[in-house]
Amino acid sequence: MYKIVFMRHGESTWNLSNRFTGWTDVDLTEKGVAEASAAGQVLKAAGFTFDLAYTSVLKRAIRTLWLSLDAMDMMYLPIKHDWRLNERHYGALQGLDKGETAAKYGDEQVLVWRRSYDTPPPPLAADDARASSGDPRYATLPQSAIPLTECLKDTVARVMPAWDEEIAPAIRAGKKILISAHGNSLRALIKMLDGISDDDIVGLNIPNGQPLVYELDADLKPIRHYYLGDAAAIAAAQAAVANQGKAK
Amino acid sequence: MYKIVFMRHGESTWNLSNRFTGWTDVDLTEKGVAEASAAGQVLKAAGFTFDLAYTSVLKRAIRTLWLSLDAMDMMYLPIKHDWRLNERHYGALQGLDKGETAAKYGDEQVLVWRRSYDTPPPPLAADDARASSGDPRYATLPQSAIPLTECLKDTVARVMPAWDEEIAPAIRAGKKILISAHGNSLRALIKMLDGISDDDIVGLNIPNGQPLVYELDADLKPIRHYYLGDAAAIAAAQAAVANQGKAK
Repeated sequence: MYKIVFMRHGESTWNLSNRFTGWTDVDLTEKGVAEASAAGQVLKAAGFTFDLAYTSVLKRAIRTLWLSLDAMDMMYLPIKHDWRLNERHYGALQGLDKGETAAKYGDEQVLVWRRSYDTPPPPLAADDARASSGDPRYATLPQSAIPLTECLKDTVARVMPAWDEEIAPAIRAGKKILISAHGNSLRALIKMLDGISDDDIVGLNIPNGQPLVYELDADLKPIRHYYLGDAAAIAAAQAAVANQGKAK
Repeated sequence: MYKIVFMRHGESTWNLSNRFTGWTDVDLTEKGVAEASAAGQVLKAAGFTFDLAYTSVLKRAIRTLWLSLDAMDMMYLPIKHDWRLNERHYGALQGLDKGETAAKYGDEQVLVWRRSYDTPPPPLAADDARASSGDPRYATLPQSAIPLTECLKDTVARVMPAWDEEIAPAIRAGKKILISAHGNSLRALIKMLDGISDDDIVGLNIPNGQPLVYELDADLKPIRHYYLGDAAAIAAAQAAVANQGKAK
């Protein structure tokens, strides 16, 4: 039997200001920093150890991982950065306030963009200052691999090769793995693991900074999963995520 | 022409309390944290970018790297941890106060242990609580590879394969590399690069938290080297290192 631990990054500055973030490289808030350290403490208290960590190339996930590893006294853990674990790209909505966007387009349209499986928001223009093509961290990728917008289906399509080519083989090789990533890249992994339907996955809310343990059988099929830590805090964090994007 | 940047970690708690540290995993002081961030700011201001970083498995070097990368806004940089970049193992002196040790054995004996090329301090007993054999970060190494003491010659012998097998090929492949390591693992690299004699290398003092740039030709032979940053601060940091280990 294998175990893998998923963590959504702690609260970010744009979680707090209720903006669509996507690939924008915003940092954690003070609360997010505390959540990340607490996640490491919970993992340490529960006796978890790891051989390898995966994270995205976005600092809110990286800092969450660093703070967790620091709290576990495992700063030496090998870390692999994989852009395919990035948050879903939010296209032309990146940087817009969710409440304003909802007031302008209506809760329903925003909910479609946020939660439809296959309807992407309007794309960024290729020459938009918000586009990622000039960013050194994506310099080795073909231009066609760098999204200008994504629906969750698109995110799933780029996350899955990271699982198939990198993470799953490492699990099978006996590596105990911690993944620090984002709401939608984690949805992609959980959709695949639990066989969740396209319709249902969009309603799954993953709380910030709460370690989520999956126990897997020899075929990497889930036996069970559970959040570590305080149940009330987890419920509150899930409710906070579910409320994001509604008009204020 | 290639460039590589070396950094000795910022001031550690045992630099401050003047103890022999070696493989003991002590953290940075507040001053060390500030030095590490400042090193990143200096590198950023000078326009340095990197493709890859190497560090040891000891947190004072890892945290120095993390803080530098944070200051450079390059937290996504791939990091390779290599135990062979660890500080020289200080044997039975690990944890002892340098001033007390000097008062007991005399400045001269301590200087021999610190600065002789081939005289190691007394070894730790294999079952000493300070020995590293039970530490998970060395679990994949053969027992014989885990030192109980080292002279600088021993340190050079284990650092060099990391250069030959890992770092030099990466440089030749065009990777711009940052190395965050320790006084003696950096001495080993500089000895090799500059062809410094066994006698002379022991007198080379590398200041904490000051980026040291080596420009290398196509054969990885040094063309020139220089510290980045404020000359007075570098001189003061070098003098502080030279004074460590003298009786108070």
